[in-house]
Amino acid sequence: MHFTSEQRLDGGVLEREFTLGEIPGILWTPASAPASASASAPEPSAPAPLILLGHPPLGLRKMYPRLVGRAQQAAADGFATATIELPGSGDRPRLPAAEQARADLRRAMEAGEPVSDGIVDALILPLVEQAVPEWQAALDALLTLPEIGGPVGYSGGVISIGIRLAVVEPRISAGVLFAGSFVPRAMYEEARQVTIPLHVLLQWDDEGNDRQAALDLFDAFSSKEKSLHAHLGGHTGVPQFAGDAAAQFFTRHLK
Amino acid sequence: MHFTSEQRLDGGVLEREFTLGEIPGILWTPASAPASASASAPEPSAPAPLILLGHPPLGLRKMYPRLVGRAQQAAADGFATATIELPGSGDRPRLPAAEQARADLRRAMEAGEPVSDGIVDALILPLVEQAVPEWQAALDALLTLPEIGGPVGYSGGVISIGIRLAVVEPRISAGVLFAGSFVPRAMYEEARQVTIPLHVLLQWDDEGNDRQAALDLFDAFSSKEKSLHAHLGGHTGVPQFAGDAAAQFFTRHLK
Repeated sequence: MHFTSEQRLDGGVLEREFTLGEIPGILWTPASAPASASASAPEPSAPAPLILLGHPPLGLRKMYPRLVGRAQQAAADGFATATIELPGSGDRPRLPAAEQARADLRRAMEAGEPVSDGIVDALILPLVEQAVPEWQAALDALLTLPEIGGPVGYSGGVISIGIRLAVVEPRISAGVLFAGSFVPRAMYEEARQVTIPLHVLLQWDDEGNDRQAALDLFDAFSSKEKSLHAHLGGHTGVPQFAGDAAAQFFTRHLK
Repeated sequence: MHFTSEQRLDGGVLEREFTLGEIPGILWTPASAPASASASAPEPSAPAPLILLGHPPLGLRKMYPRLVGRAQQAAADGFATATIELPGSGDRPRLPAAEQARADLRRAMEAGEPVSDGIVDALILPLVEQAVPEWQAALDALLTLPEIGGPVGYSGGVISIGIRLAVVEPRISAGVLFAGSFVPRAMYEEARQVTIPLHVLLQWDDEGNDRQAALDLFDAFSSKEKSLHAHLGGHTGVPQFAGDAAAQFFTRHLK
């Protein structure tokens, strides 16, 4: 893991870009105790718990404004956050199978046809297969830094990546998942193996997302603590206060 | 409205029992600014916004421990709270139709039979018809007190009472509803007329409550802001943090 740049953001958050082999990433760490210093705020030198920031496969550069907003909110709560570029996104080599599936998906949606299981599998499964070990490698590297401590949370992005990570990565102890992307059939079975506390977001009128499928997925998780927060509105209409509730979930579970 | 007793609770909350005609009730008002005085806390003399505390028809005396807990939490956030005995509950005269329906309901459930629409209508509709004007009368009286100001929220209890109040009572500007009781078919149409911001709680594994019916009901509300918070567990298993999220909803909408 090599740091390639660093800058201080408003509020003193330290933003550092890094590469992990060929994979670019960004790490944000809280400068010190939050401005409204509370008893639970970490000392400047205390290692901060980490939240991995998932995102859709649109490239880190495009996602940066939303990611840095989430990082700033998390830093105010005393969390470090980090993210890496997904396989096939940004400047990384394309994933041919996923590219083909994306074209098929676009054609199906434009024609008003249902999206077949085959398209969803081809779109998501190779991404999950390649991304999950990369996020685990990033976790290996991040947890060697003295300013980062456990426990670790995973938040948002492609829900199938979050599910797989929750199943295979024991260092992740709580997850905020956004039920807003296509989910391969096989992931429903995998969801039954998830036992960490979950906070699941659903947009009630998500244009490209099957509501009943999302409810079935929520039902499948075996976690003893799981909450579904459904809000009125489309895919991109997640209200600001939904972020506050997710932040409180992490504060309950990672501190 | 006649006050019949008063006492100071822990934290300085003033609890006053009252009668409104034949109907007993309880009013809780915050003593002063909350202990952790913040800029948004009301001055001791500022009128507090009011939350009406709904409850199941089990009698105020039985419900008191949970009601006073909710009142204390609300007072810490600067809210006054009030509740009244439901028709047919506590020391009030029975509602013969509802008593009969309750016996029919018990028989159906013990026999493992589905609960008919007729039973649900007889159980809930007379209760709604009689209770809603009583809650409105309580509101008339409460809002004459100098220590109480608008706006007003409604929280919990029999969801059909909350729906009807949201439709007919313009002074109620936000509602926390608990989708955990039988809902007559007619109330689904009424739900379409609800436009105030709603925060709906659902227990995912509520033994006596049809999950799909609850999701359909949530879908029916016409409110521009509506959120569904579903939590794992049975009817009485609403987690503590669900109360925190509901409190934040009221703080967003009533302050």
